[in-house]
Order: sequence, then structure tokens, then C-alpha cells
Amino acid sequence: MTIDVQILNALRAAAGGSVSGTELSQSLGVSRAAVWARIEELRSLGYDIEASPHLGYRLLAAPDVLHADDLISRLGPPRVIGRDIRVFQSTTSTNDVVEKLARDGVKEGAVVFAESQTCGRGRLGRKWLSPARKGLWFSVLLRPEMRPTEATRLTVASATALRRALHSQTGLEAEIKWPNDLLIHGRKTAGILTELSAELDRIKYVILGIGVDVNFSPADFPAELRSQATSLKAELGKPVFCPHLAVAILKELDHDYARITAGHFADIAEEWEKHCTTIGRNVTIRVGARQISGRAEALGDEGALLLRTEHGHLERIVGGDVTIEE
Amino acid sequence: MTIDVQILNALRAAAGGSVSGTELSQSLGVSRAAVWARIEELRSLGYDIEASPHLGYRLLAAPDVLHADDLISRLGPPRVIGRDIRVFQSTTSTNDVVEKLARDGVKEGAVVFAESQTCGRGRLGRKWLSPARKGLWFSVLLRPEMRPTEATRLTVASATALRRALHSQTGLEAEIKWPNDLLIHGRKTAGILTELSAELDRIKYVILGIGVDVNFSPADFPAELRSQATSLKAELGKPVFCPHLAVAILKELDHDYARITAGHFADIAEEWEKHCTTIGRNVTIRVGARQISGRAEALGDEGALLLRTEHGHLERIVGGDVTIEE
Repeated sequence: MTIDVQILNALRAAAGGSVSGTELSQSLGVSRAAVWARIEELRSLGYDIEASPHLGYRLLAAPDVLHADDLISRLGPPRVIGRDIRVFQSTTSTNDVVEKLARDGVKEGAVVFAESQTCGRGRLGRKWLSPARKGLWFSVLLRPEMRPTEATRLTVASATALRRALHSQTGLEAEIKWPNDLLIHGRKTAGILTELSAELDRIKYVILGIGVDVNFSPADFPAELRSQATSLKAELGKPVFCPHLAVAILKELDHDYARITAGHFADIAEEWEKHCTTIGRNVTIRVGARQISGRAEALGDEGALLLRTEHGHLERIVGGDVTIEE
Repeated sequence: MTIDVQILNALRAAAGGSVSGTELSQSLGVSRAAVWARIEELRSLGYDIEASPHLGYRLLAAPDVLHADDLISRLGPPRVIGRDIRVFQSTTSTNDVVEKLARDGVKEGAVVFAESQTCGRGRLGRKWLSPARKGLWFSVLLRPEMRPTEATRLTVASATALRRALHSQTGLEAEIKWPNDLLIHGRKTAGILTELSAELDRIKYVILGIGVDVNFSPADFPAELRSQATSLKAELGKPVFCPHLAVAILKELDHDYARITAGHFADIAEEWEKHCTTIGRNVTIRVGARQISGRAEALGDEGALLLRTEHGHLERIVGGDVTIEE
């Protein structure tokens, strides 16, 4: 734990009260001058910290920016997801950064945020718009003991976790559009890109890439997307504080990852089906060059969509572009 | 094409006859002195090239080493596999090198050989013994338009291609042991490690890693492997010329990859079943912590093994450790 994390923890533990410099210096094992220097540093990052000669330090407000030490302090000790958090000002794609970490042997649970991505990616190599500080763009490294065919479960779990976090932080009800989008009032607000490296029967690692349009104004969307995309701010009529939302999502992801590793995917699938706009609808799914139409009946064992075709067959669909027909 | 490839092509086109320095200098567009310098360089690499003042140059023998220009000259223009060949003296694992190429955007068909691997890998992270010049250790980069579930087809196709090449070059009949081994007289001689990078419904790239125990003497195997492993040299009683074998394998791989992309996987599956020791046998397969017993009935659509369990169910198995029970 860095000194900044310890200072933020101590200030937060005081719950709006003050912590003396002596106390901080003793519990951190550094000089009072060193404490002062770190406080100054935090102030320069945008933290509003009151210093009173008698009472000590008091945290009045934190800035609406992603700061690794701050996220670690807010998150508390996680089970898996978030035990290593890194924030970049700008990257090509956070999935690329996590892929490098994966190859370097970093443990599962590492999370990389970027304030902006220059080459954010959606499914099938599509571009994902990721302007600075308008949303959450981050990726999570997992090393589940799973076969590649089971990886869809992680997308399903991420969708349920993300939906709960959006609800708890904003009160908004997001719907899940299979396989990887979250919609609010029918318009896309968040997406999940699951990438994996595997042998035929063993996953080496999975990268969950998550993008949430948080504080976009309508004008921030390109004209051609405005009718299909929305943001939390646009739906709420006020901005959302990103660090709170980021931490809430990480906690929910950690919770659902624990459910999967404990063998309780069925519970997640049930929750997912309840909130999925795709289930029970007549849909057309484009998978590469192929188009399949039918009624989306349920979520299969491994996270695939079970589609009843016009010929009455039940097809397992792992991914594709869904158009709802009714 | 490098000048060395052009010189080797010209000498080989003469089919044991001579090519004059003037002719080479003209067709290559370089001076006769430059031709002489390249010939000297080839000689230093072990090529036996006769130079006669009147007749010119004649290729008498090539060394039994892997040399990229030599392999390119022997292979001729490939459809896909082998259009970029690199030979390293030593690498950690050729799959690692090809993974780097894949991320750098290198086109499919690139092949990386290593004279030795310091960290050769088998399935499930197992070690693959790869001593210098005792075998062929190489990896192929593919970018097939396939879903991850179809990747097993590439292992199946590699096994059929490898079997044909071993047969044409040595006369030995190899049997295929599902999912990824080739056996001669019941002992392992070659293996295939398929690794992939993918989104849930789209392969980004596949790396086929292939290892063939060519010129191992029995003493080259660690004692604990001697009863299970063999080499082409041990079975034939004489060494095999590696460049011939390497080129034969690349040609057969290219052929089977073309069959797959043309939609003729069924033909490959049929050939595979004919040469597979696993089909028709009672087997136990260990998949992670799970054990499944039954009769291996056939190869499924996507390259999986179809196993009839003791309860009469037909299970699709994507990978695992097979023990033959009878």
C-alpha cells in the first residue's frame, strides 16, 4: 500500500473529522514533514484537504478524476478484481495494456483504467469512442480455470455486475442486450469486450474490456450515433462522479466473479435473463456472413444464446449482431 | 526474394548442371564479384558449391541445417503457409516469437523455426524437449475467419498434413492420437500445440506450434520418456535430412489449410479418422479435474471428439488427456 493510499484511508476513516499530523506520521512510520509533503501532493492532484494547526488534516472533497491510490483506498481489500489498479492518462486501448500485463505474468484481478483511449475497441474490431474523462474505459485481467467455450459466462457476469452498479449509483434501470451491451431507454450506454488467449481446451487469460458512457453530453456523440447512444448524465440530467461509479463496478464484478468460480453461474444466468431485452423476442442475428432468425428463448449453460429457429431447431449462438424484429 | 534465394533457385534449376557467373550476374542484376561474394557466403554456411572457370557454379550438396533462404528456395511460392520464413538459432518457444509477429500485424502464413528452444511448450503448459538440430521446432501464424469453437479443425488438419509429410519423406506410417500427437509404433514422435487469441465469436489469430523428434538417438531422451517417445531416426535406423522434411510439412500444411478455407473440412476429418488410433477405442479422457470414459466414436463437425459414454450419451470433447483402455 502506498503512503497516499494510507493517508487517504486514514482521512476517510475519520469520516469527515480530522487526523493529526503526529498520528499520521506515527501510523505511517514517516516524518511529519513527509506527511505534509504527501498532503501537498494530494492537494495538487485536486484533493481539498483542510490543514488546521490544532486538529490536523481533514478531507473535504476529492476530485472527479481517476487516481489509482484513490480507487484502491475507496475499494478496500478486494477478493480478486482490483488488487492491482493502474490509471493511464491515455492509451491505445486498455485491453492492449492488460494484454501486455498478462504476458508479463501479472496476477489476475489487475485493472487498467485510461482517462482516454486513442484506439478504443468494440466487438469485431469496431471503434469505441473514448474521449477524456467523459466515461469509464477500463480492462480487467482474469485467469479463470475454464475452457474457452465457457468464456461467454464472463461476459454474462460482467453485464449483470455492470447493471447492478449502474442502478445502485444512479437509480437508472439498464437493460442487457445480448451479447455485450447495456441500454438505458433503448439506447446503448455501456459495452463489454471479452478477449481471450487460449489453448484449445484451456484459457490462458481473459481480458474484460468495459466502456461506460458516463458524462457525455449529447453533442459529444457523433451525429450518426445520437439516436442509438446515450450517457448516464444525459439520462439523469446531471453528471455522475466517476470514482464512485468505478469502485461500485469493480465491487460488483468481483462479486460475480466469485459466484462463477464458486460454481453458481446458474444464479447469474437467472438474474441476467430477468434484465435482458433479447430473451423472449423474435430476433435476427448476424454471425459473420450468416443470418439466423428465431425466438431468443434462454441463456445456455455456457453463456450462449439459445435461439429457436423458424424450423423449430434450438441453436446455440456464441456471439453476433442482434436486431430485434418486433 | 533475397539474392541468396535467387542464386539457390538458379543453381537448383540447373538440376546438377552448372550456371555461369555471367548468367547469374545478369539475371540477378549484380556484378560477377558480388555473385562470387554471395557464393563464398553460402559456402561458409555449409553449401558445397563447385566453381569451375569455364562452366561456372554447380551445387553439389546443401547442409543439413535450417536456413531461411534455403527453405524459401526449396518451397517455391506457397499459397499461404511459408510466405515468410524465419529461422532462429535459439528461442524460448517459437510460439512466443510468432505471437509477437501476430501482434505486430504480420500476415498469416509466417513460419518461425528455431534450431533449439529453451522453453519449448506442450499442451497445458508442459515442457517440450527441443535440443539443437535434433528435431523440427516451428510455429505457423494463421488468421482464419473462424469462430474459436472451430479452431480444433486446425489441429486436426495439422495432424493429417504432418502424417502425410512424415510418410512421404520416410515411408513410416504415423498414427494420430487425439487430440494432438503423432505416434510411430505406439510411441510419440510429433506433437501440435494450437494457441489462439480471440473475441468470443471471432478468432484474431491462431498459432500452430509443431514439434517433430527427427534425429534424436535413444540416449537423447530422458530415461522416463524412453518407453513412450521415439524419433524418425530411431525408427528408420538412419538420420533424416531436416530441410526436406521441413519443406514437405509446410507444403502439406498449406494444402490442408486450403482445404479448410475452401470448406472441405469433411474430407480432412475422413482422412484423419482413417489414421487415428483413438477412434473406435474405449478411452478415458481427463479434462481438467474431470474424467470421462467411453467409446471414441468419431470426429465432430468442429474437430471435437465424439465420445459415447457408459450412459449412452454422446459427449463432444474439445481437448484432454487420453488413455486407451484396451
